[in-house]
Amino acid sequence: MISILTDFGLEDTYVAAMKAVIHAIAPSEVVLDLTHNIPPGDIRRGAVELWRVAHMLPEGSVVLGVVDPGVGTSRRAIAIHTGHLFCVGPDNGLFSYISQRHADESAVELTNSKYQLPEVSRTFHGRDIFAPAAAHIACGLPLDELGASVVDVQELSAPELNVQSEASVQGEILYADRFGNLVTSIGQLTRKARSLRLDPWIGGADPLELSIRDPYLTLPDGTPLPLVEAFADAPGNALTAYIGSAGLIEIAVNGGSAIERTGVQPGQTVELRTQG
Amino acid sequence: MISILTDFGLEDTYVAAMKAVIHAIAPSEVVLDLTHNIPPGDIRRGAVELWRVAHMLPEGSVVLGVVDPGVGTSRRAIAIHTGHLFCVGPDNGLFSYISQRHADESAVELTNSKYQLPEVSRTFHGRDIFAPAAAHIACGLPLDELGASVVDVQELSAPELNVQSEASVQGEILYADRFGNLVTSIGQLTRKARSLRLDPWIGGADPLELSIRDPYLTLPDGTPLPLVEAFADAPGNALTAYIGSAGLIEIAVNGGSAIERTGVQPGQTVELRTQG
Amino acid sequence: MISILTDFGLEDTYVAAMKAVIHAIAPSEVVLDLTHNIPPGDIRRGAVELWRVAHMLPEGSVVLGVVDPGVGTSRRAIAIHTGHLFCVGPDNGLFSYISQRHADESAVELTNSKYQLPEVSRTFHGRDIFAPAAAHIACGLPLDELGASVVDVQELSAPELNVQSEASVQGEILYADRFGNLVTSIGQLTRKARSLRLDPWIGGADPLELSIRDPYLTLPDGTPLPLVEAFADAPGNALTAYIGSAGLIEIAVNGGSAIERTGVQPGQTVELRTQG
Repeated sequence: MISILTDFGLEDTYVAAMKAVIHAIAPSEVVLDLTHNIPPGDIRRGAVELWRVAHMLPEGSVVLGVVDPGVGTSRRAIAIHTGHLFCVGPDNGLFSYISQRHADESAVELTNSKYQLPEVSRTFHGRDIFAPAAAHIACGLPLDELGASVVDVQELSAPELNVQSEASVQGEILYADRFGNLVTSIGQLTRKARSLRLDPWIGGADPLELSIRDPYLTLPDGTPLPLVEAFADAPGNALTAYIGSAGLIEIAVNGGSAIERTGVQPGQTVELRTQG
Repeated sequence: MISILTDFGLEDTYVAAMKAVIHAIAPSEVVLDLTHNIPPGDIRRGAVELWRVAHMLPEGSVVLGVVDPGVGTSRRAIAIHTGHLFCVGPDNGLFSYISQRHADESAVELTNSKYQLPEVSRTFHGRDIFAPAAAHIACGLPLDELGASVVDVQELSAPELNVQSEASVQGEILYADRFGNLVTSIGQLTRKARSLRLDPWIGGADPLELSIRDPYLTLPDGTPLPLVEAFADAPGNALTAYIGSAGLIEIAVNGGSAIERTGVQPGQTVELRTQG
Repeated sequence: MISILTDFGLEDTYVAAMKAVIHAIAPSEVVLDLTHNIPPGDIRRGAVELWRVAHMLPEGSVVLGVVDPGVGTSRRAIAIHTGHLFCVGPDNGLFSYISQRHADESAVELTNSKYQLPEVSRTFHGRDIFAPAAAHIACGLPLDELGASVVDVQELSAPELNVQSEASVQGEILYADRFGNLVTSIGQLTRKARSLRLDPWIGGADPLELSIRDPYLTLPDGTPLPLVEAFADAPGNALTAYIGSAGLIEIAVNGGSAIERTGVQPGQTVELRTQG
């Protein structure tokens, strides 16, 4: 299976061109659209979405990710084997939150023109370099056929998550989804765990279990929101903080948009603390 | 074939997560996207769209529908066999307009954890309960393996359609489509017919053929619109009522948006009557 | 492979209905979505998008194109064999930029009801006529089984491209893409070349190589933009003209929208000229 995530949108035929290239090389491969509506150039949003879905993808399958504002510059084209998945795309941090930095993780630069389209444009590496590489990897081509090993793969900083005390942790708003729900960095994100087991107020490089009783979340302006287990537990029309389907704390309002209601923006700080 | 309809949109990876679950269980199954852009939480719009397309789907195939504002509450997860199709999703009326209430229709509650993901979240039953159930049904699992029989499946009320006289019938605006066309409830909807045969001013539980000569439609403010057989018969820039591709009367304006032009909203009443 | 391009959008189930028809006739055929977000009724935009992607599609595969504001009128339904591809859709010019007008090009009118749905609506030929025809052609049905030969297929005018002198050529803005980039007609479009070889200031029916040294582009208001090879060569926040992935000159601004910045509209004239 080749799973594709891009910021190309669905207005143009960019995604179709990539799929046509894949089909020509690997006609029987299943192609899964993760999303093509990452906001243009938003590498971090792409990285978070890949993190959200990666644990659902089959062992050994290929992720083709193209959020690539630096296309045509000196940024490298790479393929990574994370142990669990193969990732193909630009070396700009897009795969930061799904790579595991294990001893068995390896990466190569995609330089072998034998596995690229005959003419490589400077504007559409998704079609010319990444799609052919993904298709060949799905067909079993060893990574080292594609180019030389790379050890200094670009990484994004992890979303902010500061443990203030045994009873308080600060995180940030990562983004708002289509429903206007605000997704925070507080939860499993920094653990890079694969399971869906929920340790929502654990953070930092090493898992740390905090004993926050009766937890509530505060917005940047100090507004407190009770933390409930699921959105459906929230009272009618109120802003609510709850544990979302990816194990991250989210903020939502029933039948409305939390981003519109609160005016809170991605990057702003929220804090989870104890009631007492 | 598994046909999927949701309100998840295409910005996030929710739909991809469901497809990954299906692929793990039923890798060779064809998956068809019906639409993922049902307005968030709009169960009725979902029910109408399912009705519009259901008659095109293969006999015995599976419809996976997730418009589920009550996820995580006590609303049940169900599977229905309508005779023609299998439906999997929340028990909130989403399948009202495609179920047939025949003697051979059956439904079960999805309670057997053997056919769910190992950990079921309270926010994403589409991935954790409905997708696995749909995949197992597509592979031939009998419904009664999934849970106990349910007899009181939730139903939406049928769209309003009142026969006033032999020469007049009142219906309502169901919704506006992407082109701004206003789709009314006058047509086949309440008949739940599968064929595309057109009996556009028949309504009620029992089909009733009215003899409305030279019919025209009136908007809520009394504006009369001539009823033409097809949109293309309409004069240039005028508002026109015509029989749409699902057999429902629609209102459109050439090269413009009928909802913007008229200011009419879903739920408002329109009337079909005779000219003379 | 059947590749589909429409203006149906993804809010409704129109595309799904077409795919269900295809699946019933040709269940093992690969279906590729080119795009369904052509602006409603914009035949020319559809024609340009088909041109952009056609050279990537497999030899002998089928393009199903439905941008069809004239559905239900006397406009014909047609299938074309361009030599490279089969095209199925309305006879309104949609395939103008991918047909080759070679001696071996042929076209038929889709009149044989044997290869249509049993009841043909007047509003949805995509489902009732085009999808079945595309599926049957993909299965190997000879074109002449579908209807009588057509010799006067509708054609759009080629995008404007006037060679003013050895050192100047005028083209037009074709459209703005999702990123707000303005795509011009200056490039390969009028050559209908299949290769990605770049002769960006060649135009007219017969390729003509101009010797424009240090070329720059002028906007309708006279603003000059340097022409760079790739977008990434552009300075930070400046408007830039560069050669896009389809070989056409595009105008973009890093991290912004060129259509918003310039106020230039599709149809307006731009000029490529020499610096000196």
